[in-house]
Amino acid sequence: MSWSRAAPSKLPPSSHHRALQASKMPNTCLAVSLRNPDLSVIHLGTVLEGITVFLFLCDRWDAAEGEHMQNLKKVYNSKETKLVDDLQLFLFEVISQTAAELFTLQISVVALVVCLAGLVWSLDNGLARTPPMGWLSWQRYRCNTDCVQYPDDCISEKLYMRMADLLVSEGYRDLGYKYVNIDDCWMSRNRSKDGSLQPDPVRFPNGIKSLANYVHSKGLKLGIYEDFGTKTCGGYPGSKFYMQQDAETFAAWGIDMVKLDGCYTDVSDMDEGYPIMGFYLNQTGRPMLYSCSWPAYIKQKDFALYQKIAKYCNIWRNYNDIGDSWDDVSGIIEYYGKDGGNFSKVAGPGNFNDPDMIILGDYGLSYDQQRVQMAMWAIMASPLLMSNNLETVKPESKALLQNRRIIAINQDPLGIQGTRIVKMNGLEIWVKPLAPKGKSIAFAFLNLNHGGGPSKVSYPLNKLGAMSPQGYNVTDGFTGKLIGTYKSKDKISVNKDTSETKEYVK
Amino acid sequence: MSWSRAAPSKLPPSSHHRALQASKMPNTCLAVSLRNPDLSVIHLGTVLEGITVFLFLCDRWDAAEGEHMQNLKKVYNSKETKLVDDLQLFLFEVISQTAAELFTLQISVVALVVCLAGLVWSLDNGLARTPPMGWLSWQRYRCNTDCVQYPDDCISEKLYMRMADLLVSEGYRDLGYKYVNIDDCWMSRNRSKDGSLQPDPVRFPNGIKSLANYVHSKGLKLGIYEDFGTKTCGGYPGSKFYMQQDAETFAAWGIDMVKLDGCYTDVSDMDEGYPIMGFYLNQTGRPMLYSCSWPAYIKQKDFALYQKIAKYCNIWRNYNDIGDSWDDVSGIIEYYGKDGGNFSKVAGPGNFNDPDMIILGDYGLSYDQQRVQMAMWAIMASPLLMSNNLETVKPESKALLQNRRIIAINQDPLGIQGTRIVKMNGLEIWVKPLAPKGKSIAFAFLNLNHGGGPSKVSYPLNKLGAMSPQGYNVTDGFTGKLIGTYKSKDKISVNKDTSETKEYVK
Repeated sequence: MSWSRAAPSKLPPSSHHRALQASKMPNTCLAVSLRNPDLSVIHLGTVLEGITVFLFLCDRWDAAEGEHMQNLKKVYNSKETKLVDDLQLFLFEVISQTAAELFTLQISVVALVVCLAGLVWSLDNGLARTPPMGWLSWQRYRCNTDCVQYPDDCISEKLYMRMADLLVSEGYRDLGYKYVNIDDCWMSRNRSKDGSLQPDPVRFPNGIKSLANYVHSKGLKLGIYEDFGTKTCGGYPGSKFYMQQDAETFAAWGIDMVKLDGCYTDVSDMDEGYPIMGFYLNQTGRPMLYSCSWPAYIKQKDFALYQKIAKYCNIWRNYNDIGDSWDDVSGIIEYYGKDGGNFSKVAGPGNFNDPDMIILGDYGLSYDQQRVQMAMWAIMASPLLMSNNLETVKPESKALLQNRRIIAINQDPLGIQGTRIVKMNGLEIWVKPLAPKGKSIAFAFLNLNHGGGPSKVSYPLNKLGAMSPQGYNVTDGFTGKLIGTYKSKDKISVNKDTSETKEYVK
Repeated sequence: MSWSRAAPSKLPPSSHHRALQASKMPNTCLAVSLRNPDLSVIHLGTVLEGITVFLFLCDRWDAAEGEHMQNLKKVYNSKETKLVDDLQLFLFEVISQTAAELFTLQISVVALVVCLAGLVWSLDNGLARTPPMGWLSWQRYRCNTDCVQYPDDCISEKLYMRMADLLVSEGYRDLGYKYVNIDDCWMSRNRSKDGSLQPDPVRFPNGIKSLANYVHSKGLKLGIYEDFGTKTCGGYPGSKFYMQQDAETFAAWGIDMVKLDGCYTDVSDMDEGYPIMGFYLNQTGRPMLYSCSWPAYIKQKDFALYQKIAKYCNIWRNYNDIGDSWDDVSGIIEYYGKDGGNFSKVAGPGNFNDPDMIILGDYGLSYDQQRVQMAMWAIMASPLLMSNNLETVKPESKALLQNRRIIAINQDPLGIQGTRIVKMNGLEIWVKPLAPKGKSIAFAFLNLNHGGGPSKVSYPLNKLGAMSPQGYNVTDGFTGKLIGTYKSKDKISVNKDTSETKEYVK
């Protein structure tokens, strides 16, 4: 997609100033740990300065069901401290991917009971019960249509088939990465005589249906890209006046997800038009996950708009395109931290905000920054759509992409989008309630300072919402190791540059 | 140091726009290769989109001695194409580090023949004949003075002794990394009764002289930090009214390099004051490399200013503090690419612009970005002062830091600062003439685009200044492998994601 970028997030203050600020961090109760280079642990431990994210899970969180976030915010503002005594390890397992398959037969029924005029239906296609996972070509392959110079990197059926093969052979599919998503520049420049979309005949000589069959034969799903306007961002035919026909074409081809971009149109048309395309998609009878770029093109976004979008779309981009850089990742995290219009609140099974692709395995992120993206996309309940060359992903990146515990946090069936509860001196704390309701929660501690050595920060467990009198087990989200069992007054520390956590438990 | 940062470099245009632009790159003559993830080669080959730097060396470049750059620019603007026939491999060896030791006894003589009033001497202390190499605490350790919470990370004699040990045991010293440099926050808050500087007694219980002895016993050199103003940036005693005494103190302690920052002073004092401190340093009779932050505090810098600074200082920071991020690295590269005031021209043996510390081994750069910093600091003839925890530097970072060929380019005895000759669509080409004069040259090809796949760019060898009728051998600066032997009309290609270059030589 192509819209203008927002200004980058503010640069940090000058080095010395930051260093001096850092020393002012409060130092009470539980410490949390950041920027641990070897970091296989995270904890209610030492916060070391840096950019590493630590995730941990507290079991037996006793807030009333359905009131996690409110309680959390109350707790955060209170000075209440309860003791927790009884502890139990909470083990994560990968959420069954079949969750994403539920209710897929309900769409046609929904579609048939509404009429196009006075559209009142809402999205209930049974898809995206958890954030969709898979692979998407855009960030890595863009609009490369030159298969002579770039036979392995051009947008072609060979590329998608190769990535489908790799999703299976490299073990991604079995962890939930099921979508193989075509992005822009797959089409011929012109529709066929009957008005149908058609793929570029040289780059997709066997057609999209054949590609879909291939992808399906691998136990995967095929996504495709179109545009709401008269042209795609890359200048290929748009859907504006062909919505029904295009929806039918996609269904006939066996498409499983449709991403509808928003170039070449009056933005004021979107409010009516995006729901209409959704209607036609539903009307086909084929369950197609509907990805709307709609809010990304709207400048002023409020809660009502997000509620409407969530009514008609499964997932939706609402911010800039991601590039292969830490600026992009940290900019997105800041946007989601601000949560303008409270968009986090509309996320849930069937509906997710989409902060854009996962760039692990590309070239712009350090290992620690890759941990941050993976962990934060999990906390934010974001679609996990990788855009990389799966052939050349380094083992350390692959291990992060395939971390079952992080995936489980992302795929938690409650589908609650984590939110930022603390932002201070470059340190952020994010919280995402998990199933079982009221019992478990994932936390992310994020240090966005650029430079300097480790630093310690203390933070009380009860302010993280961990108020149960039964106590808590805290588990490292990356490794699954039990960090320790906690009462509110306990402190633990870790050696900043190793993972010898247990030695430091007091 | 602490001054306000400049605005970040412009964001690239939107993704699609970039993708479309990239395809417009000229496609003639020799191709060059970028963004090769496995990249152990660089070439007159395929330029792949990304951020990897390729270095290569052309032997037998026949421009007249001393006219490299002029000829290069002429060539770049001409359409002249000469054939090159006779080829010879140019092998790099690490430049002897003894080059940095030459003439160290001349200082006192120089100092004594001038008088303080009407200062007319220029710096001729025999130091920094090539860019100094070593380790500096600031970026990684900042102003951490809390040795209770951070025993291993506070500014203390133990830190510098540990890093000195590691410079030796990890093999850095023998490659030229000889300076162990203290930065801010080493002092007591007050001078002694006789006005002398004194280290913090708790953190430096044995004093600086003892530390210098220890460092010297390891075959290393000790650098120290002070400030031109009334206080250091961290608020410790400054040198403004104590210059002679401080210079004498440093000499008595056995200091080998003095970095003089520029906080807490009227900038207009610098023009006179920095030379005076240099005078006193020279007057001690002890060779102390003089690092001036002077130009970094001057907003409008012109060639005359740089000429003056080069007259009195060995090295000088002229831009923002580096942080642990790609933004910082790429921002510095852009500043050096712009070369405002032609500051590159004043670099040479004894005088080098200082773009700030090497952050390889820290947390903010991907592997490819680390390659870029190392390669570009070599091309820019920049001081190589690492700021990292040498205990935890990953092997892949250490291999880059210790790459003999890259170090040799950096330490080339001509001391010419490489300059940017092309900037187009996120691609940059940098050139640094090497010894033997007129025969060899280092090139860096740099792709600063964020994201997208590989892309091919062609560039003619003669436009890079390689005009010799004898022909050229092109060697990969990272691996030392011969890429090929070239005539002007030759093209080579490389497989984008592997280093199987030879298979693609045509």
